[in-house]
Amino acid sequence: MAASHGALAHLLPSTYKRLIADWLEEDCPSFDYGGFVVGEAAGEANLLGKSAGIVAGVPFFDEVFAQLGCTVEWHVHEGEAITPIKKCATVRGPVRKILLGERVALNILARCSGIATKTNALVSALRAHGWSGTLAGTRKTTPGFRIVEKYALLVGGADPHRHDLSSMTMLKDNHVWACANNNANTTTTNKNVKANVSGNDITAAIPLAVHAAKAAGGFSTKVEVEVRSIEEANAAIGAGADVVMLDNFTAEEVRGAAKQLKTEWAEKGKRGFLIEVSGGLNESNAAKYVCEDVDILSTSSIHQGTPIVDFSLKVSLR
Amino acid sequence: MAASHGALAHLLPSTYKRLIADWLEEDCPSFDYGGFVVGEAAGEANLLGKSAGIVAGVPFFDEVFAQLGCTVEWHVHEGEAITPIKKCATVRGPVRKILLGERVALNILARCSGIATKTNALVSALRAHGWSGTLAGTRKTTPGFRIVEKYALLVGGADPHRHDLSSMTMLKDNHVWACANNNANTTTTNKNVKANVSGNDITAAIPLAVHAAKAAGGFSTKVEVEVRSIEEANAAIGAGADVVMLDNFTAEEVRGAAKQLKTEWAEKGKRGFLIEVSGGLNESNAAKYVCEDVDILSTSSIHQGTPIVDFSLKVSLR
Amino acid sequence: MAASHGALAHLLPSTYKRLIADWLEEDCPSFDYGGFVVGEAAGEANLLGKSAGIVAGVPFFDEVFAQLGCTVEWHVHEGEAITPIKKCATVRGPVRKILLGERVALNILARCSGIATKTNALVSALRAHGWSGTLAGTRKTTPGFRIVEKYALLVGGADPHRHDLSSMTMLKDNHVWACANNNANTTTTNKNVKANVSGNDITAAIPLAVHAAKAAGGFSTKVEVEVRSIEEANAAIGAGADVVMLDNFTAEEVRGAAKQLKTEWAEKGKRGFLIEVSGGLNESNAAKYVCEDVDILSTSSIHQGTPIVDFSLKVSLR
Amino acid sequence: MAASHGALAHLLPSTYKRLIADWLEEDCPSFDYGGFVVGEAAGEANLLGKSAGIVAGVPFFDEVFAQLGCTVEWHVHEGEAITPIKKCATVRGPVRKILLGERVALNILARCSGIATKTNALVSALRAHGWSGTLAGTRKTTPGFRIVEKYALLVGGADPHRHDLSSMTMLKDNHVWACANNNANTTTTNKNVKANVSGNDITAAIPLAVHAAKAAGGFSTKVEVEVRSIEEANAAIGAGADVVMLDNFTAEEVRGAAKQLKTEWAEKGKRGFLIEVSGGLNESNAAKYVCEDVDILSTSSIHQGTPIVDFSLKVSLR
Amino acid sequence: MAASHGALAHLLPSTYKRLIADWLEEDCPSFDYGGFVVGEAAGEANLLGKSAGIVAGVPFFDEVFAQLGCTVEWHVHEGEAITPIKKCATVRGPVRKILLGERVALNILARCSGIATKTNALVSALRAHGWSGTLAGTRKTTPGFRIVEKYALLVGGADPHRHDLSSMTMLKDNHVWACANNNANTTTTNKNVKANVSGNDITAAIPLAVHAAKAAGGFSTKVEVEVRSIEEANAAIGAGADVVMLDNFTAEEVRGAAKQLKTEWAEKGKRGFLIEVSGGLNESNAAKYVCEDVDILSTSSIHQGTPIVDFSLKVSLR
Amino acid sequence: MAASHGALAHLLPSTYKRLIADWLEEDCPSFDYGGFVVGEAAGEANLLGKSAGIVAGVPFFDEVFAQLGCTVEWHVHEGEAITPIKKCATVRGPVRKILLGERVALNILARCSGIATKTNALVSALRAHGWSGTLAGTRKTTPGFRIVEKYALLVGGADPHRHDLSSMTMLKDNHVWACANNNANTTTTNKNVKANVSGNDITAAIPLAVHAAKAAGGFSTKVEVEVRSIEEANAAIGAGADVVMLDNFTAEEVRGAAKQLKTEWAEKGKRGFLIEVSGGLNESNAAKYVCEDVDILSTSSIHQGTPIVDFSLKVSLR
Repeated sequence: MAASHGALAHLLPSTYKRLIADWLEEDCPSFDYGGFVVGEAAGEANLLGKSAGIVAGVPFFDEVFAQLGCTVEWHVHEGEAITPIKKCATVRGPVRKILLGERVALNILARCSGIATKTNALVSALRAHGWSGTLAGTRKTTPGFRIVEKYALLVGGADPHRHDLSSMTMLKDNHVWACANNNANTTTTNKNVKANVSGNDITAAIPLAVHAAKAAGGFSTKVEVEVRSIEEANAAIGAGADVVMLDNFTAEEVRGAAKQLKTEWAEKGKRGFLIEVSGGLNESNAAKYVCEDVDILSTSSIHQGTPIVDFSLKVSLR
Repeated sequence: MAASHGALAHLLPSTYKRLIADWLEEDCPSFDYGGFVVGEAAGEANLLGKSAGIVAGVPFFDEVFAQLGCTVEWHVHEGEAITPIKKCATVRGPVRKILLGERVALNILARCSGIATKTNALVSALRAHGWSGTLAGTRKTTPGFRIVEKYALLVGGADPHRHDLSSMTMLKDNHVWACANNNANTTTTNKNVKANVSGNDITAAIPLAVHAAKAAGGFSTKVEVEVRSIEEANAAIGAGADVVMLDNFTAEEVRGAAKQLKTEWAEKGKRGFLIEVSGGLNESNAAKYVCEDVDILSTSSIHQGTPIVDFSLKVSLR
Repeated sequence: MAASHGALAHLLPSTYKRLIADWLEEDCPSFDYGGFVVGEAAGEANLLGKSAGIVAGVPFFDEVFAQLGCTVEWHVHEGEAITPIKKCATVRGPVRKILLGERVALNILARCSGIATKTNALVSALRAHGWSGTLAGTRKTTPGFRIVEKYALLVGGADPHRHDLSSMTMLKDNHVWACANNNANTTTTNKNVKANVSGNDITAAIPLAVHAAKAAGGFSTKVEVEVRSIEEANAAIGAGADVVMLDNFTAEEVRGAAKQLKTEWAEKGKRGFLIEVSGGLNESNAAKYVCEDVDILSTSSIHQGTPIVDFSLKVSLR
Repeated sequence: MAASHGALAHLLPSTYKRLIADWLEEDCPSFDYGGFVVGEAAGEANLLGKSAGIVAGVPFFDEVFAQLGCTVEWHVHEGEAITPIKKCATVRGPVRKILLGERVALNILARCSGIATKTNALVSALRAHGWSGTLAGTRKTTPGFRIVEKYALLVGGADPHRHDLSSMTMLKDNHVWACANNNANTTTTNKNVKANVSGNDITAAIPLAVHAAKAAGGFSTKVEVEVRSIEEANAAIGAGADVVMLDNFTAEEVRGAAKQLKTEWAEKGKRGFLIEVSGGLNESNAAKYVCEDVDILSTSSIHQGTPIVDFSLKVSLR
Repeated sequence: MAASHGALAHLLPSTYKRLIADWLEEDCPSFDYGGFVVGEAAGEANLLGKSAGIVAGVPFFDEVFAQLGCTVEWHVHEGEAITPIKKCATVRGPVRKILLGERVALNILARCSGIATKTNALVSALRAHGWSGTLAGTRKTTPGFRIVEKYALLVGGADPHRHDLSSMTMLKDNHVWACANNNANTTTTNKNVKANVSGNDITAAIPLAVHAAKAAGGFSTKVEVEVRSIEEANAAIGAGADVVMLDNFTAEEVRGAAKQLKTEWAEKGKRGFLIEVSGGLNESNAAKYVCEDVDILSTSSIHQGTPIVDFSLKVSLR
Repeated sequence: MAASHGALAHLLPSTYKRLIADWLEEDCPSFDYGGFVVGEAAGEANLLGKSAGIVAGVPFFDEVFAQLGCTVEWHVHEGEAITPIKKCATVRGPVRKILLGERVALNILARCSGIATKTNALVSALRAHGWSGTLAGTRKTTPGFRIVEKYALLVGGADPHRHDLSSMTMLKDNHVWACANNNANTTTTNKNVKANVSGNDITAAIPLAVHAAKAAGGFSTKVEVEVRSIEEANAAIGAGADVVMLDNFTAEEVRGAAKQLKTEWAEKGKRGFLIEVSGGLNESNAAKYVCEDVDILSTSSIHQGTPIVDFSLKVSLR
């Protein structure tokens, strides 16, 4: 993405601070015996980057220590690539407060940086193949920790899409099929169309589902449909889907289908929709899937089960 | 909207129940002296509709009493228009529990129904003028109570847009102007464009702001721009805005501008964008503002400062 | 009420701040895309009053911005009547923080001021009729938002009575009747009295309910009884009710009953009880209901379904 | 108090359950190693009363186990006096769940019963002296645990007064004195009166404070004034205080002052006010302080630093 | 304990502040009428110690006032013994804020100091008998208030053991017996051992339970077993219990058993285990139970049902 | 570990349910547009294991769906190794509720199973090398998600040590050094020892730190010391450390040091302490580090940055 990394902190509402207070409480539910040992003399700690990667998570790291009455001075910028051993920041405050925040702050930074690093690598690989489209993540994030992981995607250069169920509506086969077979929804959709839909005809059912999604989400919420064929894609685009996701296509089929869809609909005067490809992408196979007509690649591999970047704090008294 | 009202409850996550627990606690922070007086004999209460309107808020009403161990049997459907005195539902449970939930449940139902009623009236007026576009609300809702008020808009037939700052990005003059003048964002936008933008040239600044919004929100989040002239509208549409909102236009200017924008951009092959008109609409003046080229009318008048629908509970022992 | 409006903020506990944090989170559950666009340059925003009314909600408005690291300088006093366009305050802070708080702060101020304005108008009308009694609100408030609406009543000059179920005990016909018919409470009340109470004899049942209410609420909690006749009022006053509320009386009956009750009980040496009238009051009919012997008029019309006062923020960089 | 203890549970809102969930979490913040040892075989536990006292806290005890999926069958009634060893209840459920709730449930029951027992003893002593007034508690309760301690006072036969700062307004010398000397409040009170008040003349300042309290609390909130002389008491009663509390009076002075105040004001036709005596009361000296003219004795000795009643759970498999 | 009392505050995580916010809200759920009366003039309050005892709870007291924007200057040290009337601290801030925090702060300080005082007295008595072992508390604390009570034990010189169920695993007869009889755990323990265990043979079952406890708690969690005989103690120690608690032993038996266990196991080369005695200890009988071989005495009598230390605040304007 | 996996759920307190409610709210902060599309027809979903691994997280998965009114029937046991495609469970309930819980439940299961799988592989490798000691994790867990990750370690066969700062006290060089140099702690430790400690003599400082840790944590909390030499290890063991962790030792040095420490201290009659080795272990190098004298290997590699196990839900109507 084109945005500078420093400004990404401006995306954060003030309310993630509540999560950080919870995380500090998780790590110290009752007494802090080590804190008693070290006391409150003024201390200073160097944040050392111990493995290569992209630094990400600065505003969260800062907030952990702000809640404990410590200050952080950064020597690198968020989004900067570091090589170990790199002195990244200096934390100052009472020694026991530094140690009280140490583990929570490092746990955030290590994970956030790990995701940014993995993301950045795939973005770079795709750009090297000449593709200028969007790399996006998924909702496959660690429960309770999503805001950090989505933030990491942004630092790494990806689109955090899709934040949650209240964001852009995504219609997978489960949704389309359930919609077509759900008596409870009979009155919510066009009965003329419905009359012609048999339970297993997904292509015929897609317009029903898109119609229902637009009724609920309104004009401000995009609708994406997961499709398994050109026919399903045409049904979705025709019904007004903003995005179609090609599922179960080979790399070759993807490129062919994307070109065909973009071309044929352009001839009918419809150009606004986007084409997304999802699943199985990595640094080695990416070149095969992308082409000018594919707008978005989405993969959870950039934020799920990714290696961390290793950081540590080394404390000294002032 | 085409959706059946009964199914709107399917939009609700399970988590609004937390709010209802808070609201019950607000109304009874310590002892319930009246509850002591009446005791826990099995009781039954009739919910009476005492003024005309559209019934809305059924799932919230149900949840209040579910949390108190009472059951609700409805005799009307959500979205149904009632004329007083109408017996709408029967609540059953221990008398003190019915009275413990009474005020909270009625306060929700009265406000939710009031908004649905006002909304429905304006939708009907607009439809009577032959307009088939979308009537939408705004973020001008009661803090903490938004989910109920947005739900009411849906029951009344409007689009609840826009739920919150994390939904579709809205760029008002404040945003555009700040973006253009904000040194901190220099690196986030196209410097070539920026070089030509003087601080007061909103038209030139709009592409910068749209660019930044798309960088942050990604492909799944729509971008809307508030514009004050055809020139600004063109700048927004050209930069990829999904929606332009015409601000400070007379009714006549609205119709002219909408037609001009839709026509000229269609000629250039661009058809997907939407035109929104906002402010000052009511049942008497709506006809003047709407036309085929206007896609959306938005107004907070349908959910802010609206009259309530009057309901009461009449209890009896079983 | 005689209190200065400035000092009403002294009624607020420190803990309403928790609610405001929740409200900010409601309006920005994940990323703040607009905030990214505008960045953190130092800004300044004028709060403009755009419709006539009484300004109310100052401490809540201040707290919204305090939580976001912004400051507010007021140019009007709480409780002051404004005519548009009036520059009411200046908010200073990083632009994105101002915009992050804008909607929540305005939503509070608009509603709070709307209630204060409506309340003030009715108080003024009643005073113009020469009545010096108390105008009071009810528990018919927006769930979760009660503290703001009760505060607005105070600014407007009304008594916020009754805050919640843990405040003064209110016995309506539902309570009295349930108490008399509730086997579970048999042992809680005077059996001699109970023996003479048939289930439908509300007059005979009132002393039972008052007795139970005083047993639970103790000497520090007042007891009010809603009555439909002089006989019921006498039963309530004789049993020690602090307040009787005349229900279903015409304006003429109200004045007659109030005078009769005050006179006859004064002759018996009892003077402390209060007489309340509730329901249906407005600026045009108020004169008919009030008289020297009526102590309190209560109505939800001054805080439920009331129009808002319109405010907006206009931002500039510093 | 005349109320049966069984029905006192009807005073509780549904929301104390939130506190009990918190208390269970306090006792088991992460893993329950003992629970792993015992497993989930069906078990049964006898609740044994091991010291003499009044049983109190039944609804809280029940809720602890309800949240853990266990049931409780009681063999005694709340408020019943037991002599050890008394089998009071049977708890049934999976063994680990019984042990998970054991300590929290017993900690509540032991403290609640201890307060009820101490309260009951003093009430009985006062009744034995022929006094029929009200014994009341104070706000000197354990933070976070007030609802249980106030409930215990009710079970023991006392008035839980005063629940919190939002209940009946209490004006101590600190309040009166601060009110008289507080420039900020100048406009809130009667300037004619104020003009005559020097900073140290508490008697003259009392009407100012009562006036301000009534302005804020309205007609539904009682006002009590702590007084140190007959003159201060007269000032308070004259200004409309609902209760005067005699402070720093000897037992003899109390009886004299109470009689004088009641007599003289009755001659002026004012009978509704109450007289409260506070401090230093116990079972041995109570007889000296009470008399017909004293309405209320309040003391924190019945709920602060009181011995517990000893209970234990003995588990067996079913 | 050897620790200085001043440094005990270093044991506290930042998160107890959340509890104090809750406690302030408990004492003022809606309006603060008294606060309105006194206003926000700058004030000062002396904290007076009015009964003899050990001062404890300083960091909690400080935090109450910090949350209200007041400051506290202490004139005594935590852990210091005071004799009344002692001026212990000065609180400064707006008068209404001082009074808003007054009761919560005093309620904490009075209880915390009461426990420290009782604890200190028993520690002193035991030390006077020449015993140098550990006096410990129990989990019999007030729900929600444990952190304060455990802190008080530390100030008084006791070991706060055992904080919660997630701390050191304690196996009482209930656990041992349930473990031996619980089919669900069959596979969790050594089947050879299990084969020989009849349901009522606690001695044979102890190794099963210790084995299961170590499997769950791992190497970092100690295991304590409550035993009723030398045989059970030997079974526990042999299975690797870190601590055995002698239950139902006379004072003479305690001393004999402790000596025998320590001697015999030392001969086998095992020296690390600890012996704890619990129940029924007080200042008069302690000498009889302790001896060189007893490592720990634990009793809830030092923190449950203990008298408070009396403190008050006397406010003046500055 | 020897425990059966099924019973590990017995370690969980009831309170993790609060976390799961938060996680559901994270994934659906406002409306569930997809839920509207599919409606509430009765559905059934198959949980498919799509990559090889150990299934872990059953109680969390169950709770997600329990909160949504769905049921789960398992076809595999927790801790069971699966090979894809494996039908692991069937979820039943209204379709929209299944889809509302789907992503949260799968996100938990995939991560929990991934950690259990990685852990299990390393345990197996170590066992294959004939080592019977304990494999342990660390506090390097995802903030807010620790209970799931610690649980996964147990399912995989590792010791979850160390849960948080309130568990076993861990003294690293930072602690030891700060303790020795901290004036604030002067009085908390043995001044005779302290007199001889220069700021950089860690060996001399270790007894000070162990002393302070035992003073704070008491007899029930173990103390572990990280050491960099035999001398430091001897200082720690001599001061009473329960565990020493060898840091910065080569594999050969580890085996030598462990043997030397165990032998020499056994000769002095001290056998209870444990030796832990940490850092850099993996399946290929484990054999080199372990030996009979090493009790514990700890590594964050088994729970940090581990691959997930892939699961999906396939929904059908019933």
